[in-house]
Amino acid sequence: MRMLPAVMKLSTRITGLTGGGSDGWDVFYKARQMIADGIKVTELTIGEHDIRTDPAILDAMAQSARGGHTGYAMVPGIGALRDKVAERISAQSGVPTTRDNILITPGGQAALFAAHHAVCDEGDTALFIDPYYATYPGTLRAVGARPQAVHTDPINGFQPRATDIAPYAAAATSLLINSPNNPTGAVYTPETMQDIAQVSVAHDLWLISDEVYDTQVWRGRHISPRSLPSMSERTLVVGSMSKSHAMTGSRCGWVCGPADVINHLITLATHTTYGVPGFIQDATLFALDAGPELEERIAEPFRRRRAMTLEALANQNVVKSVPPDGAMYIMLDIRATGLSGEEFANALLDTHQIAVMPGESFGQAAAGHIRVALTIDDAAFVRALDTLIGFAHSLA
Amino acid sequence: MRMLPAVMKLSTRITGLTGGGSDGWDVFYKARQMIADGIKVTELTIGEHDIRTDPAILDAMAQSARGGHTGYAMVPGIGALRDKVAERISAQSGVPTTRDNILITPGGQAALFAAHHAVCDEGDTALFIDPYYATYPGTLRAVGARPQAVHTDPINGFQPRATDIAPYAAAATSLLINSPNNPTGAVYTPETMQDIAQVSVAHDLWLISDEVYDTQVWRGRHISPRSLPSMSERTLVVGSMSKSHAMTGSRCGWVCGPADVINHLITLATHTTYGVPGFIQDATLFALDAGPELEERIAEPFRRRRAMTLEALANQNVVKSVPPDGAMYIMLDIRATGLSGEEFANALLDTHQIAVMPGESFGQAAAGHIRVALTIDDAAFVRALDTLIGFAHSLA
Repeated sequence: MRMLPAVMKLSTRITGLTGGGSDGWDVFYKARQMIADGIKVTELTIGEHDIRTDPAILDAMAQSARGGHTGYAMVPGIGALRDKVAERISAQSGVPTTRDNILITPGGQAALFAAHHAVCDEGDTALFIDPYYATYPGTLRAVGARPQAVHTDPINGFQPRATDIAPYAAAATSLLINSPNNPTGAVYTPETMQDIAQVSVAHDLWLISDEVYDTQVWRGRHISPRSLPSMSERTLVVGSMSKSHAMTGSRCGWVCGPADVINHLITLATHTTYGVPGFIQDATLFALDAGPELEERIAEPFRRRRAMTLEALANQNVVKSVPPDGAMYIMLDIRATGLSGEEFANALLDTHQIAVMPGESFGQAAAGHIRVALTIDDAAFVRALDTLIGFAHSLA
Repeated sequence: MRMLPAVMKLSTRITGLTGGGSDGWDVFYKARQMIADGIKVTELTIGEHDIRTDPAILDAMAQSARGGHTGYAMVPGIGALRDKVAERISAQSGVPTTRDNILITPGGQAALFAAHHAVCDEGDTALFIDPYYATYPGTLRAVGARPQAVHTDPINGFQPRATDIAPYAAAATSLLINSPNNPTGAVYTPETMQDIAQVSVAHDLWLISDEVYDTQVWRGRHISPRSLPSMSERTLVVGSMSKSHAMTGSRCGWVCGPADVINHLITLATHTTYGVPGFIQDATLFALDAGPELEERIAEPFRRRRAMTLEALANQNVVKSVPPDGAMYIMLDIRATGLSGEEFANALLDTHQIAVMPGESFGQAAAGHIRVALTIDDAAFVRALDTLIGFAHSLA
């Protein structure tokens, strides 16, 4: 007689990570399957540059590795890189920052997780702004926190107001923001940042500020909330090389915050990742040493394609853009077609083999919208956009 | 009037990570400081090879990166690498294993953390064997579990018996084992593994088996508990390229377990690390394709230095070795000197500038011992060993 396998119980934290239900990425997976089946699909879904990491950066990595930097690296990050990140943050934000404020992490996602681990206990309420990057709620659940969405309105350009946040703030431990924003392209104004700072201080919230798109600002300017009065002691900034330097696959990011928090995060890193490869850190240092010119060169195609999009949208009223002030996406309001974002994205994929993300993939606040990534070459991008607009008009 | 900075509350999980008190690594830090101060110290502390990663592996990495594998890699790991790891595990353990059983992680430490995250809820009791690798208790606390040490006895060669584990098992969720063992060098016998399997089944424990030293076995043979009856459905194996392939700095490891657990772990990885660099995975695949010859070449110096140690210890009775059957360390019993491991290590460092780890750094079961890493060149190693033995005799 063969024994039945035991039904082993997993942690409720991991089994509840996605919050149940669809993850809203069905269109994305369908597009991937079509591509796997040999169908030509124009992909405007994820935030992956249409260029690869600069060869000079890869040479720096290879040289570091061949030079022997292949053993355990210091868990907090190599000193020179922590200094360089601190220097960059000081220059951008005006807040004096040293290596003691910096932990190097294996990517921005690891930084988001670590920052929430540091401030949220099991059962704590952690706020995030809707629309949101897909991993946010699960990241909060992964540390045992209860995610609570704060809805923003397309009418306000998806900028959160103090009155949006305040109702949830009294019961919350932390607030996660992201400006420039994925998926909306919103760049938070000085007034928005003031609102956020005021609510954070009033309700004693930790503010976790995901600033991974800080080099992609087309209108206005990037403000780090860490630079506002009374905010540096309660703000943890998440940064990354992925978007700014087309190093998505290198998985190198950081947390910047008060030195005592960073000390605890170093202990956490010792027990969760044990540091970042030394040769990747050396490549990162090389890339940051290249200065803002490289960052501007990498941002330039998105700036250009944003302008192309606005031009293509002019003189029609069916597809409207929400002011795209930053990041590598544009959010389009397609409610005039009578379809939901998901219905529109599915129909566009089925009929024209163009893949975009439904706004619903990023929360409820972006329903009736689609997110278009500015991540294919200009000519193909304009063609896809024209097709998309024509398709919307055929429905309206 | 300047406002006092707010006293912001961190999570109890992160502030309690180290369990309070010294981390037992004072001798290690003292040695590092002496080196920084220009003093020549013979370092026999951590498990870092005295060779670097093989240049051919680094070439494979550089080629992958220059070939464009610099974008987001698949979060579970690239298919070919998952297949290769599965094939290696099938061959070693005899348990049929496919890519569905494998998650690639950024190092073995990340795998240890993820495995415990998957099975332990907040407040659950998680067992581990004392003596232990330094990060174990903190790793369990990082997922909110309460770590409980199971003491082993040098008289049994630090092999845990069912009677050692059983008293704690009824209240526990998981058991973490490590064979070949760091720090003791114990390779668990078939009887020990039987004991562990029996207790795990009887008390419905998850077994987390850290097998990162599986290529370094000098006596007996490595047994993965996943190969025992009824164990594959409750065992999560942690593996890594660090020790077997001298790739400590590349941070590439894996979890092997039931497919449904791996599915949940992929979701967790999406929210904690977002995958491992593609070029590192390609380098790992290249290294595994090189087969057991490369692994044997990397293990050989430790095998040789172990034999040298036994020879040096012959014909005296003050310094005794605990049977060193595997891994890159030897545990020496120095109780005949009348000193604790910590006192001995401190005195040896102060008087002879030789750094070894006190047994107490690895728990209470190894008190009165020191751990010597077999990680410097043969001539220097034998000299240091002779000095150490002479020093012990001067005390006895």
